[in-house]
Amino acid sequence: MVGGGRGAFIGGVHRMAAALDQQIELVCGAFSSDAVRSRQSGEDLYLDPSRVYGDYEEMIRTEAALPEDVRMDFVTIVTPNHMHYAPANMALEHGFHVVCDKPLCFDLQEARDLVETVYRTGLLFALTHNYTGYPMVKQAREMIADGVLGEIRKVVVEYPQGWLSTRVEATEQKQAAWRTDPKRSGIAGAMGDIGTHAENLAEYITGLKIDAICADISAIVEGRRLDDDGNVLLRFDNGARGILHASQIAAGEENDLNIRVYGEKAGLEWHQMEPNTLEVKYQEAPRKIYRTGVGDLYPSTVAATRVPAGHPEGYLEAFANIYKNFAKCLQARIDGTDVDPLYEDFPSVEDGLRGMEFIYKVIESGQSDQKWIKM
Amino acid sequence: MVGGGRGAFIGGVHRMAAALDQQIELVCGAFSSDAVRSRQSGEDLYLDPSRVYGDYEEMIRTEAALPEDVRMDFVTIVTPNHMHYAPANMALEHGFHVVCDKPLCFDLQEARDLVETVYRTGLLFALTHNYTGYPMVKQAREMIADGVLGEIRKVVVEYPQGWLSTRVEATEQKQAAWRTDPKRSGIAGAMGDIGTHAENLAEYITGLKIDAICADISAIVEGRRLDDDGNVLLRFDNGARGILHASQIAAGEENDLNIRVYGEKAGLEWHQMEPNTLEVKYQEAPRKIYRTGVGDLYPSTVAATRVPAGHPEGYLEAFANIYKNFAKCLQARIDGTDVDPLYEDFPSVEDGLRGMEFIYKVIESGQSDQKWIKM
Amino acid sequence: MVGGGRGAFIGGVHRMAAALDQQIELVCGAFSSDAVRSRQSGEDLYLDPSRVYGDYEEMIRTEAALPEDVRMDFVTIVTPNHMHYAPANMALEHGFHVVCDKPLCFDLQEARDLVETVYRTGLLFALTHNYTGYPMVKQAREMIADGVLGEIRKVVVEYPQGWLSTRVEATEQKQAAWRTDPKRSGIAGAMGDIGTHAENLAEYITGLKIDAICADISAIVEGRRLDDDGNVLLRFDNGARGILHASQIAAGEENDLNIRVYGEKAGLEWHQMEPNTLEVKYQEAPRKIYRTGVGDLYPSTVAATRVPAGHPEGYLEAFANIYKNFAKCLQARIDGTDVDPLYEDFPSVEDGLRGMEFIYKVIESGQSDQKWIKM
Amino acid sequence: MVGGGRGAFIGGVHRMAAALDQQIELVCGAFSSDAVRSRQSGEDLYLDPSRVYGDYEEMIRTEAALPEDVRMDFVTIVTPNHMHYAPANMALEHGFHVVCDKPLCFDLQEARDLVETVYRTGLLFALTHNYTGYPMVKQAREMIADGVLGEIRKVVVEYPQGWLSTRVEATEQKQAAWRTDPKRSGIAGAMGDIGTHAENLAEYITGLKIDAICADISAIVEGRRLDDDGNVLLRFDNGARGILHASQIAAGEENDLNIRVYGEKAGLEWHQMEPNTLEVKYQEAPRKIYRTGVGDLYPSTVAATRVPAGHPEGYLEAFANIYKNFAKCLQARIDGTDVDPLYEDFPSVEDGLRGMEFIYKVIESGQSDQKWIKM
Repeated sequence: MVGGGRGAFIGGVHRMAAALDQQIELVCGAFSSDAVRSRQSGEDLYLDPSRVYGDYEEMIRTEAALPEDVRMDFVTIVTPNHMHYAPANMALEHGFHVVCDKPLCFDLQEARDLVETVYRTGLLFALTHNYTGYPMVKQAREMIADGVLGEIRKVVVEYPQGWLSTRVEATEQKQAAWRTDPKRSGIAGAMGDIGTHAENLAEYITGLKIDAICADISAIVEGRRLDDDGNVLLRFDNGARGILHASQIAAGEENDLNIRVYGEKAGLEWHQMEPNTLEVKYQEAPRKIYRTGVGDLYPSTVAATRVPAGHPEGYLEAFANIYKNFAKCLQARIDGTDVDPLYEDFPSVEDGLRGMEFIYKVIESGQSDQKWIKM
Repeated sequence: MVGGGRGAFIGGVHRMAAALDQQIELVCGAFSSDAVRSRQSGEDLYLDPSRVYGDYEEMIRTEAALPEDVRMDFVTIVTPNHMHYAPANMALEHGFHVVCDKPLCFDLQEARDLVETVYRTGLLFALTHNYTGYPMVKQAREMIADGVLGEIRKVVVEYPQGWLSTRVEATEQKQAAWRTDPKRSGIAGAMGDIGTHAENLAEYITGLKIDAICADISAIVEGRRLDDDGNVLLRFDNGARGILHASQIAAGEENDLNIRVYGEKAGLEWHQMEPNTLEVKYQEAPRKIYRTGVGDLYPSTVAATRVPAGHPEGYLEAFANIYKNFAKCLQARIDGTDVDPLYEDFPSVEDGLRGMEFIYKVIESGQSDQKWIKM
Repeated sequence: MVGGGRGAFIGGVHRMAAALDQQIELVCGAFSSDAVRSRQSGEDLYLDPSRVYGDYEEMIRTEAALPEDVRMDFVTIVTPNHMHYAPANMALEHGFHVVCDKPLCFDLQEARDLVETVYRTGLLFALTHNYTGYPMVKQAREMIADGVLGEIRKVVVEYPQGWLSTRVEATEQKQAAWRTDPKRSGIAGAMGDIGTHAENLAEYITGLKIDAICADISAIVEGRRLDDDGNVLLRFDNGARGILHASQIAAGEENDLNIRVYGEKAGLEWHQMEPNTLEVKYQEAPRKIYRTGVGDLYPSTVAATRVPAGHPEGYLEAFANIYKNFAKCLQARIDGTDVDPLYEDFPSVEDGLRGMEFIYKVIESGQSDQKWIKM
Repeated sequence: MVGGGRGAFIGGVHRMAAALDQQIELVCGAFSSDAVRSRQSGEDLYLDPSRVYGDYEEMIRTEAALPEDVRMDFVTIVTPNHMHYAPANMALEHGFHVVCDKPLCFDLQEARDLVETVYRTGLLFALTHNYTGYPMVKQAREMIADGVLGEIRKVVVEYPQGWLSTRVEATEQKQAAWRTDPKRSGIAGAMGDIGTHAENLAEYITGLKIDAICADISAIVEGRRLDDDGNVLLRFDNGARGILHASQIAAGEENDLNIRVYGEKAGLEWHQMEPNTLEVKYQEAPRKIYRTGVGDLYPSTVAATRVPAGHPEGYLEAFANIYKNFAKCLQARIDGTDVDPLYEDFPSVEDGLRGMEFIYKVIESGQSDQKWIKM
C-alpha cells in the first residue's frame, strides 16, 4: 500500500475492503512520505517492520528484489491525486499489478501515459470507482442491457454532498485541504472528486457514452480555489438527454449519489444511501422494488452479494467487491487459469482515462461561452 | 365557469376545489363550445338551465345584465391555453373578477395585454398555480424568508411525468391532444404545461428571480410537435445556481414535482407527492421533518390547513386554498372591508406573465447556440 | 346536521366531505345544544335562519312537517358518542335516512336498538368509518378477495396517536374532554375512538371476522378515566393470528393507522398517512407498489378516485367517498332506480354494532385474567 | 472456529465480521463433524492443514498444548444450537475465551451451567446478538438513558421474516432444516431464532426488563414441528406496556427487525433494514432524523462507526462491532491493561441466559390458558 497512514481516510477503507473476504493480506507499505509516520502506521497494522518503507520507490525496489513467493502481488495506491501516477507507473514497470484510487491521476497526460503502460505491461489495473460495486447497480446495468427499459431517453445522475459548505479547508481538515488545492487535486475539485463517480455510474449503468456536455461550474464558497458545485446538461451517444449535477455545498446532504434512467418502456431509480433497493417504474403497472438477495437476480448481482435479503450490505461491501473481483482475476493469473468473466467486472484504467477526459471537458465547458462541448 | 364540460379534466378539479370550503357556489357556465354539450354539463351540475350558456360571450353579456345580487361574482376559466385570453379579458371588461387556469394565455402579447387590463380595471385575478397552495410550500417559503437556510446558493426543481411516453395524442386522449397541439397549447408543450409550475414554485419558495437560463429542450417522442422534455441550467438574481427539469416522457413517473433548496446554513426538500412533509437538512445536526399540523408553524401554513396532523391533505385541498384565499379577498371587496394579508397569497396575473416569459425564454434557449439567455 | 357547531372538529370535516362532490347540500341544522351557538353556526354556514334549530328534536319535527321537496333528505349526526342514539333513532322514526359518526353509540344496548330500527324502517344508514373510503384500501380488499395473498395467516393492524400523551383533557381542549369522559364517550376511550377504526379496517380488508381476543388495556396518563392505550392479540375465524394495537399516548405519532396482512402467497401493507400507496410483497419476487390511479385497478378503487395518479388524494377525499356512495344510493332511492352495487360500499349500522361489540369485548378482556375472550 | 464449514451460513458471516477490522486472524478450526468436509473448508480458508481438526475436542486439546504465543486466543462457536454448550464449556475449561452464536444453548440447564463456568473461569464470553452492534441502536440506548424520551411507557418490537412461509425444511435447505428440528434447535423455532433478538434489542435499547408476558405462539405451516410465528404482550419492570412479535411466515418480509419506543416526552423508531437512521418523534415539534456519522452523537455511537455519513454501514459492520469490542477487551487482557468501558459493550453470557429464559417463558405462555406469565 502506498499512502493511507495515520490520519488518512481512504487508506483505511481500502484495507477494510481488501480484508473483508479474506483473499488479500496486507504485507508491506509506504504509508506516508514521512518515514516515522509510515513506520508507526505499519506498527498499527501489525506489519513486519522490515517491510514498512520510507517511500514508495524504496518499497517497489525492495519488494521486487524479494523472492516471488514472498514479495507483494500488487500495489494499492491511496494517496492524493497528484501522487497516483508516479507510484502506479513505477509499480507497473517493476511487474506489479495495481489498484488505484480515483480519479486516475493529476492530469490528462499522466492518464494517457498510464493507459499506455498498462497496455504495454499487460498487468492488471483496477480503479476504485467503488459505487459500481453495489449489487443493485449491477442489477440495473443488466436490466438495461436486457432491454427492460427499452431505448434510453433520459438520464438524471446526482451527487450532492454538503461537507464543504463552509471553508473547512481553512481548518485542520486534511481531507478538505488536499481536495481544494489545485497542486494536489488537479484542475477540478468537486467535479474530480465526485463528479467522476457520477459520470462513471451513468455510463456503467446505461452502457451509453456521454457525447456532449454543457456545464455551469462554480466555486461557491468564498476563497475556494477549485469548483465545489457543478450542473451539467448531457447528451449521450444514442441521442438520450441527461443531467449530471454534483455538489459539495449542498448543505445537509451526506453522500447522496443517485441515478434515474428513463427508457421508452420504463424507468429505474437507485440511491447509494439505500443501496439495496432498485426501483423499476412502469407507466401503466405497479412499480417493482428489486432488493439485494430477493428473487431471481442476474448472476453479477448475486456474485456481488454476501448475506441474505434484509441484511443490509453497505459501502464497504461494495468497495470490497472491487477487491474481490480483482483478487479473483489476480489468482487466476497466478494460477495460470481462466477466470469467470463475472469477475472481470471492475473499473479499468480506460475508465480512469474516461474520467480524466470528463474532468477536462467539464471544466472547459464551465469556462466557455459555447453551449455544447463534445467529449 | 368557462370550459370544463363533460370529458374535461381540470374543470372538475376547479369545481371540487371551489366547493370544498362552501364559500363559493357555481351559478352559471359556458361549459363547451358545443351548446348541447354545455347544456348537458349544466344538467350534470344541477344548474338552472337558464344560466347554462352556449358560449362565454353570451354568458358574460347575459350575467352582466342580471341584478347585482343575482349575477355571478367572478368567472373561472378552465379551457385550453388558446381560449384563456378572450374570456378573461371580456370578463374583466364587464366588471367580473377572474380565476384562470395556467399558463396565463396562448402567447406573450396576450399575457401583457391581460396584465394591463387587470391593472386598469383593478379587479381580482387569480392564476391557479395550485402547487403553491400546499401548507408545506408556504412553510418552506416562510422559513427561507426568515433566513433559516441563510443565503440561497443552489436550487434543484424537478417535474417529471411519464404519461406522454408514447404518442397518446394519436389516440382519443383529449388531454394529450390539445397539450401537444401548437394551435391550442402555444409555443411550448411540457415546458408550458408543467415547466411553468416548476418555475413558479422555485421563485415562490425562494423569493428569488431566475436571471438567466441555458436550456436543452426536446420533443423526444417521434412525431410529437411540441417539447416533451426540458433540462435547464438556472442562474438566480442573487447569484445562486440551479437546475430545472421537467418531462412528460419520464416513463413510470406520475406527477413528481419536487424542489430542493440549499443555503449557506441548511437545505430543504419538498415533494408534491408526499406534500405534508418538509425536510430541513443541517450539515452537523439531525434533519428536521416538518409536517402539516405539527408544532409551531407559520400563520400562512396554518391558514392553509384544514384537518389535524396525520390526516393527509392532498391536491384538491391545495387547489382549494387558492379558491379559499381568492374568496376571502372577494368577500372583503364585496363587503368593503380590509382583508387579512394572509389571504392575499394566491398567484397573480403578474405571476402569469412571468410564466409566459419563462416559456418564451426557455424555448428560445432550446433553439439557440448561445449558452446563457437572460430572462 | 346534528352537532358540529363552532369549536367542533368532526362537523366541519363532514361538511367538507359532503360538499366536495357537489351532490349534497346542507339545508338545515341543530349545531349545538346551546341555541345561540347553533344560530351563530348557522350564520357561518349561510343557512336560512328559519332552518337553524335549537335542538335536534325541533329540527326533526319541523323538517318532517315541510313539503317533501323542501325538507331535508337525511340527517348527519356529528355529536359526541352519548348523543348519537337519540337523534339517529328519532330521525329514522320520522322517515329520515341517517349518516352517523363512529362509534355507533354510547353503549351496546343502544347499538342493538338502532340496528333494529334501521331494519324495521328500511332506511339508509351510513357510519363514517372513513378510513375504508381510501382507494388503496378498496384495492387491498379486492386483491385479498381475489386470492392474491392466498389464505390469510396473520394480520397486524396499528393505530398509534400521541395527542393524549399529556393530560390535555385538564386544559380547555374540547376534543380531549369528551373523549376521556365516561359519561360522554362510553366505557372506552382510545379503544372506542380509534381501536374500532382499526378493527373495522382489519375486517373490511381481510373479509375475515375476529373470533377471539386477548387484550392489555391501560390508562397510562395519571388521572385519566378511560383507556389511552390498548394491545390486543387476535384470532380470526379462519384461524389466522393477529395483533391490534391502538394508542393515544404514542408520543410523536400523528394518526398512523396502518395494516399488514400476510397470506400463504404474499403480504400487503398500507398506511393511512401515505394512503395512495399499497405495497404487495412477495417472497421470491420484487415487491409491487400499487398506486392510486396507476394501471389496471379494481372498479371499486377507480370509483373512489377523483384525480390522476400523482395528485395525492387525502383524508377528506376518503371521507367524501362515504358521502358520495351514500348519496348515490339515496338518489337511487329517491329516483326509484337500482343502484350500482359499487356504491353500496359504505359502513353500515351492522358494522357499527360490530364495533360496539368489539369495544365491549376488548374492555372486558382488559379487565379479565382469562386469556382468550370470544367475540 | 467450531462449525462454519462448506454450506454453512453464519460461519462465513463470523469470519467476515472478524476479518473486517484486521484485529483477528483465523488460525485453526473444526469446521464440520465430517472430518473430510472440515479439512476441505480449512483449505478454502488458506489454513495450515495441521490446525484444521476433525472435531472440536481435538481442536481444543491440541491447541491448548501449543505454546502460548502460537495457540489460538479464543474460540468462536457457529454450530446449530444443540452444539453450542459442549464446545463452549470445554473451551472455557481449557482456558480459552469464547464467542458464541445465539441463542446461548439448547436448553435452560445448559445456559445456567455455562453462566456458572464463565463466572468461575473469569474468561471473556461474547454472544453474537449482532443487531445491538449498529451505531444507531447505541444512539437510541444512550438517548433513552439520558432521558430524552422521559419515562418509557410503551415498546413495540417486531421481527418479521417470510422465508419459512412454505415448508422449506422439506427441501434440501440446510438452514431451515435444523432451525425447525426440535433435536437441534431446542423447544423453540422462530422465537429462539429471532424472537430472542427482538427481546434482546428491546431490553438493550430501553434499559428495562420484561417482567411478564402473554403469548400466542403458533406453528402455522402444516407439518412444521416448531413455532414459526409468535405474538406477545409485554409488561416491563417499570410498568411500561409492550408488544413483541416475530414471524418467519410473514410472506414477503425479508429481515425487518424494528423497534418503536414511546416515553412521556417523545418516541423513537429504528429499523434494521435502514440501520443508519434513527427517528426521534416529538408531539409538538418537528421529528429529528439522527443519522450515523452526522452531528454530535454519543461516544459509543461514534466508536461503532467506520466511514463518514452517507456511506451506508450494514449488517456485517454491526456484526464486526461485536468482534471489535471483544478484541479490544481480549487485547487488554493479553496486555494486562485496562480497557475503555466503551469496548465492554457486547452481549454477555448473562444476556444469553436471559434469552433462554425468554424462550422458555414464551413457549410456556403459548401453551397456557393463564393470561400473564412472570419472567
